Amino acid sequence: MTDLRNDTFLRALMKESVEYTPVWMMRQAGRYLPEYKATRAEAGDFLSLCKNADLACAVTLQPLERFPLDAAILFSDILTIPDAMGLGLYFESGEGPRFRKTVRTEQDVDGLIQPTMNGELDYVMNAVRVIRRELNGRVPLIGFSGSPWTLATYMVEGGSSKDFRHIKAMMYSQPQVLHKLLDRLALCVTDYLNAQIIAGAQAVQIFDTWGGVLGHREYREFSLSYMQRIVEGLIREHDGRRVPVILFTKNGGQWLEVMADTGADALGLDWTTHIGEARARVGSKVALQGNMDPCVLYSSPKRIRAEVKRILDDYGPGTGHVFNLGHGIHQFANPEHAAAFVDAVHELSAR
Amino acid sequence: MTDLRNDTFLRALMKESVEYTPVWMMRQAGRYLPEYKATRAEAGDFLSLCKNADLACAVTLQPLERFPLDAAILFSDILTIPDAMGLGLYFESGEGPRFRKTVRTEQDVDGLIQPTMNGELDYVMNAVRVIRRELNGRVPLIGFSGSPWTLATYMVEGGSSKDFRHIKAMMYSQPQVLHKLLDRLALCVTDYLNAQIIAGAQAVQIFDTWGGVLGHREYREFSLSYMQRIVEGLIREHDGRRVPVILFTKNGGQWLEVMADTGADALGLDWTTHIGEARARVGSKVALQGNMDPCVLYSSPKRIRAEVKRILDDYGPGTGHVFNLGHGIHQFANPEHAAAFVDAVHELSAR
Repeated sequence: MTDLRNDTFLRALMKESVEYTPVWMMRQAGRYLPEYKATRAEAGDFLSLCKNADLACAVTLQPLERFPLDAAILFSDILTIPDAMGLGLYFESGEGPRFRKTVRTEQDVDGLIQPTMNGELDYVMNAVRVIRRELNGRVPLIGFSGSPWTLATYMVEGGSSKDFRHIKAMMYSQPQVLHKLLDRLALCVTDYLNAQIIAGAQAVQIFDTWGGVLGHREYREFSLSYMQRIVEGLIREHDGRRVPVILFTKNGGQWLEVMADTGADALGLDWTTHIGEARARVGSKVALQGNMDPCVLYSSPKRIRAEVKRILDDYGPGTGHVFNLGHGIHQFANPEHAAAFVDAVHELSAR
Repeated sequence: MTDLRNDTFLRALMKESVEYTPVWMMRQAGRYLPEYKATRAEAGDFLSLCKNADLACAVTLQPLERFPLDAAILFSDILTIPDAMGLGLYFESGEGPRFRKTVRTEQDVDGLIQPTMNGELDYVMNAVRVIRRELNGRVPLIGFSGSPWTLATYMVEGGSSKDFRHIKAMMYSQPQVLHKLLDRLALCVTDYLNAQIIAGAQAVQIFDTWGGVLGHREYREFSLSYMQRIVEGLIREHDGRRVPVILFTKNGGQWLEVMADTGADALGLDWTTHIGEARARVGSKVALQGNMDPCVLYSSPKRIRAEVKRILDDYGPGTGHVFNLGHGIHQFANPEHAAAFVDAVHELSAR
């Protein structure tokens, strides 16, 4: 493996000194880029794109060709694990992800396939290897997974949900069934992230997209505790270097203190939390990643720059900040505005 | 007007002593009740039901016939004001509310009708008068409105939204246009709630359903400041009695301190916040209303009772608590479980 030429992202996550605040964008390889849409059309559909290592690599690198981003993130879907467990992931246009089977009973949990990393999920590791090779030391590669709770919401509901009716009914009525499912998922996510690390991921992020719909107690019991178990099971050093882990619970701003106690290296923040106040709350335990509202990209380069400055000022002096959006970049964002965003972070944070 | 026979709800909101913790349920008149569905079918559609005072009164009273609730809430829609402003509200089955016209420019804002309370919106006041008369002093009647920000999201997006793309583009690019719209709405909501108070509402609640999608700064500037202005403009005493005002920002758990500074009498809480910690944060400034996850109603009477006990214990001794769900009751909730919920609150909180 080639030496990293830009390790600013990794150093900021470890709270080591940096020359400027590193930046990447959640969902930076995505539909807002015409070149992404072209590659996706070539692949046929979304899952075929994820499963073709060369095309997954191509779309992973596309945003790096446009913008001087400080990290690449594996292009994949968060639902690879449930799909590999036998649920049959598919996408209906405009409908979001769907599963052919749902998980509603203990028998359903028992019937899940235990996927292997060199079997059902090898295509993901293969993509990591190809991307890492093609990156050739330019910037670090981030691996990722959905959190057990977040994966479980899709598995129990059968797709996206607005009210989380079925999984919450299970949580309040048959918590032992849900715990059994989450337990299976936590083991699998640990293996999955470790396999990504061995294949070449230099940092990993756990996306807890739906942890914020839980009550304060249920968040700890049904989401956080499983993320903590994953953090404890992860390879934390590889190839002679620390592999940082980032936890991101969307709408988790009330729970940063307990998130920081998991042993993660960094927390992702959405835009509802003042990053300076978050920093004061978590102290020196973790670095912070975030937190511009992606909708700011709908405004002008000037307004974007002002917002970047506010967030940098809010964070204050010193390291431990990775700049990002507070959620994935929207499909209608203007790529030129994304460029203005990345440039503003670099210019305004230069020490 | 008849004297109130049960004013527990009003006393708890004023932090006066009570014999038990009063309880009502957001959306307590709704699709989970077969008698509601029957009346709605009789009315034809949702808007016709809102506009027919006798039928609106009938559905308002239905949950009181089933459960010993401590308050009634006006049956109406949160989008009556935008509809009266000329946007043309309609409902597509399964699609939620839609508007025939949207508000995207300053010209659109200038073109809005200024509705009057004895004109376009008189049907709401008429419903309040009929319901108050039929309640005949049984329990207090709550009036309500959507917050200016929440109303604006529907007006700008043209209906429900997942990403709030258009209103956020307006907020970040043309904040003066959005302020002009919010200003119009704040004036109208103030008149609307005052007219409800004069017509007979004995407390009012402002539903800020979508304030939680805002950044921490934008929440203050585009939602909270307008709610504060409304609170300052409300009739606070009527018929010789204080008229309490309740602010409810869904997903607003990070902002309770500034919400408490508006001068509102009480804050609504969703289930993501520990009500005891919320109480410590707001001190003696406000009462608290909440905060059971409505999905707990999908479990069993025993589990519901345990959850009620936890929340009562979390709040701790003393007055200032109105029990409620943290959001509207779901259409698939079992009415018998709602009964178990109401009974559990009364029994477990009896002093």
